[in-house]
Amino acid sequence: MVKQSRTGVWFVGVRGSVATTAMAGATAVRLGLAAPVGLVSELPDFAQLPLAGFGELVFGGHDIVATPLAKRVEQLTTSGVVPRDIAAAVLPEVTAVEAEIRDGVHVEDAVPQLQVVERLAADIAGFRERHGLDRVVVINVSSTEPPSAYRPEHDDLAALTKAMETDAYVLPPSSVYAYAAFEAGCAFVDFTPSTGARLPALDELAKSRGVPYAGSDGKTGETLMRSALAPMFTTRALRVLSWSGTNLLGGGDGATLADPAAAASKTASKQRGMAKMLGYSAGGEVHIDYVPDLGDWKTAWDHILFEGFLGVRMTMQFTWQGCDSALAAPLVLDLARFTSWAHEQGESGALTSLGFFFKDPVGTDEHRLLAQYDALREWAVR
Amino acid sequence: MVKQSRTGVWFVGVRGSVATTAMAGATAVRLGLAAPVGLVSELPDFAQLPLAGFGELVFGGHDIVATPLAKRVEQLTTSGVVPRDIAAAVLPEVTAVEAEIRDGVHVEDAVPQLQVVERLAADIAGFRERHGLDRVVVINVSSTEPPSAYRPEHDDLAALTKAMETDAYVLPPSSVYAYAAFEAGCAFVDFTPSTGARLPALDELAKSRGVPYAGSDGKTGETLMRSALAPMFTTRALRVLSWSGTNLLGGGDGATLADPAAAASKTASKQRGMAKMLGYSAGGEVHIDYVPDLGDWKTAWDHILFEGFLGVRMTMQFTWQGCDSALAAPLVLDLARFTSWAHEQGESGALTSLGFFFKDPVGTDEHRLLAQYDALREWAVR
Amino acid sequence: MVKQSRTGVWFVGVRGSVATTAMAGATAVRLGLAAPVGLVSELPDFAQLPLAGFGELVFGGHDIVATPLAKRVEQLTTSGVVPRDIAAAVLPEVTAVEAEIRDGVHVEDAVPQLQVVERLAADIAGFRERHGLDRVVVINVSSTEPPSAYRPEHDDLAALTKAMETDAYVLPPSSVYAYAAFEAGCAFVDFTPSTGARLPALDELAKSRGVPYAGSDGKTGETLMRSALAPMFTTRALRVLSWSGTNLLGGGDGATLADPAAAASKTASKQRGMAKMLGYSAGGEVHIDYVPDLGDWKTAWDHILFEGFLGVRMTMQFTWQGCDSALAAPLVLDLARFTSWAHEQGESGALTSLGFFFKDPVGTDEHRLLAQYDALREWAVR
Amino acid sequence: MVKQSRTGVWFVGVRGSVATTAMAGATAVRLGLAAPVGLVSELPDFAQLPLAGFGELVFGGHDIVATPLAKRVEQLTTSGVVPRDIAAAVLPEVTAVEAEIRDGVHVEDAVPQLQVVERLAADIAGFRERHGLDRVVVINVSSTEPPSAYRPEHDDLAALTKAMETDAYVLPPSSVYAYAAFEAGCAFVDFTPSTGARLPALDELAKSRGVPYAGSDGKTGETLMRSALAPMFTTRALRVLSWSGTNLLGGGDGATLADPAAAASKTASKQRGMAKMLGYSAGGEVHIDYVPDLGDWKTAWDHILFEGFLGVRMTMQFTWQGCDSALAAPLVLDLARFTSWAHEQGESGALTSLGFFFKDPVGTDEHRLLAQYDALREWAVR
Repeated sequence: MVKQSRTGVWFVGVRGSVATTAMAGATAVRLGLAAPVGLVSELPDFAQLPLAGFGELVFGGHDIVATPLAKRVEQLTTSGVVPRDIAAAVLPEVTAVEAEIRDGVHVEDAVPQLQVVERLAADIAGFRERHGLDRVVVINVSSTEPPSAYRPEHDDLAALTKAMETDAYVLPPSSVYAYAAFEAGCAFVDFTPSTGARLPALDELAKSRGVPYAGSDGKTGETLMRSALAPMFTTRALRVLSWSGTNLLGGGDGATLADPAAAASKTASKQRGMAKMLGYSAGGEVHIDYVPDLGDWKTAWDHILFEGFLGVRMTMQFTWQGCDSALAAPLVLDLARFTSWAHEQGESGALTSLGFFFKDPVGTDEHRLLAQYDALREWAVR
Repeated sequence: MVKQSRTGVWFVGVRGSVATTAMAGATAVRLGLAAPVGLVSELPDFAQLPLAGFGELVFGGHDIVATPLAKRVEQLTTSGVVPRDIAAAVLPEVTAVEAEIRDGVHVEDAVPQLQVVERLAADIAGFRERHGLDRVVVINVSSTEPPSAYRPEHDDLAALTKAMETDAYVLPPSSVYAYAAFEAGCAFVDFTPSTGARLPALDELAKSRGVPYAGSDGKTGETLMRSALAPMFTTRALRVLSWSGTNLLGGGDGATLADPAAAASKTASKQRGMAKMLGYSAGGEVHIDYVPDLGDWKTAWDHILFEGFLGVRMTMQFTWQGCDSALAAPLVLDLARFTSWAHEQGESGALTSLGFFFKDPVGTDEHRLLAQYDALREWAVR
Repeated sequence: MVKQSRTGVWFVGVRGSVATTAMAGATAVRLGLAAPVGLVSELPDFAQLPLAGFGELVFGGHDIVATPLAKRVEQLTTSGVVPRDIAAAVLPEVTAVEAEIRDGVHVEDAVPQLQVVERLAADIAGFRERHGLDRVVVINVSSTEPPSAYRPEHDDLAALTKAMETDAYVLPPSSVYAYAAFEAGCAFVDFTPSTGARLPALDELAKSRGVPYAGSDGKTGETLMRSALAPMFTTRALRVLSWSGTNLLGGGDGATLADPAAAASKTASKQRGMAKMLGYSAGGEVHIDYVPDLGDWKTAWDHILFEGFLGVRMTMQFTWQGCDSALAAPLVLDLARFTSWAHEQGESGALTSLGFFFKDPVGTDEHRLLAQYDALREWAVR
Repeated sequence: MVKQSRTGVWFVGVRGSVATTAMAGATAVRLGLAAPVGLVSELPDFAQLPLAGFGELVFGGHDIVATPLAKRVEQLTTSGVVPRDIAAAVLPEVTAVEAEIRDGVHVEDAVPQLQVVERLAADIAGFRERHGLDRVVVINVSSTEPPSAYRPEHDDLAALTKAMETDAYVLPPSSVYAYAAFEAGCAFVDFTPSTGARLPALDELAKSRGVPYAGSDGKTGETLMRSALAPMFTTRALRVLSWSGTNLLGGGDGATLADPAAAASKTASKQRGMAKMLGYSAGGEVHIDYVPDLGDWKTAWDHILFEGFLGVRMTMQFTWQGCDSALAAPLVLDLARFTSWAHEQGESGALTSLGFFFKDPVGTDEHRLLAQYDALREWAVR
């Protein structure tokens, strides 16, 4: 197998914490300043894959805010995500990405969406050409959107495209980015719970362009734990009576999810996956609270009441205290590498083998973490 | 396949909480008074196996204490393990087992061990004959022994047997029971961390008699959680820096393990399995405290400090609050059914496919819960 | 001082878990079957008070459901609140209370409230006379009401009484009971967060009749912990940034509080007390979830993010797992004894010295547990 | 009242984390770079006391290691204890203390202890004179000593002093420092569990010199929580059946306490205080584990099993995650200020009113946090 050549990673939300941590971290790993901890694609199971090296990743992206990358790195240093010495060493390379940042989608502009798509696609294509890249993976790491209303055009590519000629709002922004990625011949990954590529019309577009997509909603905390623990109950024939969860989030994600509409879509997705794993719907609610002072950190407390032999009731609780950007960033790099390779292999449409990374995996009902890992490994060695 | 006919289950420690709960529970399930919650062998994955039905299990056993089974049932009712209405319904069948209880091994008697073996084997064989049983599985659910000293005779069956002609202490009691089980042509399961069949000489005996054995140390709490969670860290490439645990145990097990020697063997076994799963030895200590007022209940608190991308340190904690007898009893019934079936299939020696049930699985280094479950399922459908 | 003679305890919600546990428990303590654990009034600090003995308490009450007390005792036994041997011993005395139970307030009846008051007051007075009681304390332990709307009549006794001549809904039911208690010359205690006596018009009535009242909302779990812990932060000058809480409740209280309106009044009251103790309003939300399978049990998890020297952020978490009826019942008995004594001493109006027992203490802003205890003790020795 | 003039603070262990954080923090507060969070002496309750201002504290000390203060500040910055901008601002003042550091007690030197005392006392007196200080408080913040053996000379000052003329080991090092402090006419505070001034002979010396002393063992984590929570159980008449604790410590303190002898003295002291607060000895063990990767942080998990009304068993758990230096440093400054004021007021011998700060308060059995706070406040306004 031939080692993959230079690969573009185009972030939607490139000035945010996750993208910046990913760029800083990729550089740090390449320079030997950080061990490949947290990088699934660096596990021995994937050593035989000709994935793009960390020195072969080229970064760029869209954003709608103007925070300089240097300032974001400083924030990440202050909040303990990026160690100071690493920040100093990688700063030149990270700030060099400034030249590859383009303006994103501003909903208030009221421009017909096909026009917006053309602009975005041209941005991505220009990036690919300037750097002579074989492939570009577009990854959405921007803030979570509120759930969007269904439109009949979402089910049909021709109708959708026609509507976008004049309509400025037929797609939510995340889907506009997905459309543009496909239009530019690029793979798309949605690391957020937003709609992204998950509309029949966009699936049609991806397949017609021969590009793959993956998603959605990176699994980095409470749901990761749940997908590791739920199978313990099922294989031991223990019956979960209620699985309750409270999530305390700081940072941008917390603020976004404090919006009840956004939270509703997230909690619904969490309980759906749980029911799939257990085979029945256990009781219990999920809360998402915004606690600004937590900054980049999040805390999840889950309480599981379960029944054992002869109806005896027992409980399990866990508390997960994680740093969101540090958990998400390596997965984003993994997804860029795996998705680019899938694209090179000629896969198109939904990449169901990447469900391991997601809370709401596209095209599959498998939510159990280790079954997902096995699927990923089998796909990789295929 | 022919459904298995009547199967004997001979408990070492038949008057204890685990055995009594297992007998009461088997009867309750057979009578339709309790759902098969906690019974792995009743999962759909094993539906095609011709396992012995709950009405086909016949119970008996050895013990060195005289607590009447009726009194033990009453204690289990008071402590909330066996519901009162179930206790009333199953009491006649459980107390009928009194007729099948024989005196166990009293170390203070100083009788040559071969003589003891003959007596025990005759007890088991008599039980099998009286009830016309096809097979008997001997299951050790007695108190944990302190670690026993190595003797060269443990490595060689001929030397061992010769020593036992005159020596009253060449084997620890659990191994005397294993010897007797094999001698009687029966399978042996060790649900405790005691030595049991895990000596080269006894392995030789099991193979020569064509009988299987399984063990050791039922996985019902902290270690169960650890074996579900450790693979989450490894598949996500997160590095565990320390995994600390405190176990609060009431009941007989707590009192036994309050003895530092017994605890030492248990904690050593726990950390060994962890190192196997992680691929390296993480720091962290394990404590076992005796808290008498917890009764049949146990609480485990674990704290995991781990490192993610760029060296960021995060933590996970869990608290497990379980009822020991209610967790152990269904597994004991599962083991009786699976082991009897293996015996019928002609398997002999260590049953490595039953590692799913044990903290310290014989004959295998696989400690990951779901990999163990897959192994069990594959073995069953073979 | 003369020992108090026989005292009546009239429960609103007499057939519920709290009242039944209180009656069973008082009998058990009197018979020497249970130690006075959980009874504040039995602490050495109050030994010199001539409180009514447990053999001098006579029970009766109102209710709107028909569950026989014997059945409630059986339920409490099954759920582990009342031990079986105690239940058997106290059953005759508890079921004898059936003769002293009268029908409560049915809102659907649309009877002018003054008429209802007269009926209720007559019930209470009849009870007092039949048993030749010196005093009766009416204690509300019925389900929590939704918050009720303000009416101008609530501020003035004359206007209120006039309205009640024709209006069937000017007062919420809990306040109708309070009116009736005062009308009958009895003290009133509200162990729930309902309105009860906490209206200016009813305060006026209590004072005019020379009877005291206490309330409201018994402090038995999360708030108890908060009132013990908040002063730790203030006296150490540590700044609480957020104090988040999740409450999982089974039983009747959980079902009632699953109603968002009822929960809203409870969580608002919790955060108010916290702000009083801290001296500022810390962030953090409080959730109340109904988890039916928890039965009489409740679990509270609180997460406190606080700031120390030089802005360093630290956290504290606690999990409280308590049995609601077992926590509430002894406090109800304490309140009966203390309130009756206050009545005998000639106190009338709000008993601010009993704030120790309540989440939302009437007539005082002191929420710190130990300051409340000191106030109680000083009042008692006065 | 006259405001206190310049006060010396002489640290034993001046190059350690606690002393360095205290010096950096005092400067930061003086410069207005940090709020007085964590400083008890800055609470409104003590506003009327003429305590030495943060600009009036002058620092110096003994140490036996050579780590430059600048390096220690850098370490504290890296580990998140001292924010980087504050570190930069206070560095000149902190490093200026280098000139006031003298060599400490090296046990391997085998010098008669009276000679050592003379050297140490001269160091302290010289510091006082160079800076024209009214008073100096000597504060031990060095590593915990192993428990030392009793010697009859410890009970009598004359005998002790005579022995020290020739004996190099009659006192443990912490007590040598205490002797030197008293000899130099200075107050002594022991923030560690070491022996320090707590010998009859040294109490005699302190009184004869008219100087006060305080101690011992700063209360900053698990014991702080325990002293806030234990009174909740006693005032509610709930019976604690077992109170178990596990402490995970990194940093120097963890390494020291990993020594079983040192840990033994610490855990014994913890359980003694608990028994005093409860009025009986509850079961439960305390573990102290060294987890190096925790650095300056410590985690305590406590599990309390308690009994309520009718014998119902319930549990409470807490997890405390604190930064040791950030918790200890402000208390050390509080102690310097309060002790200096006491000295000025003419107090000598054990300062029992400062028990609020200590796990093992000298001269009093009061361990309840809020009772200790009340005692402190009453002493201050006296």
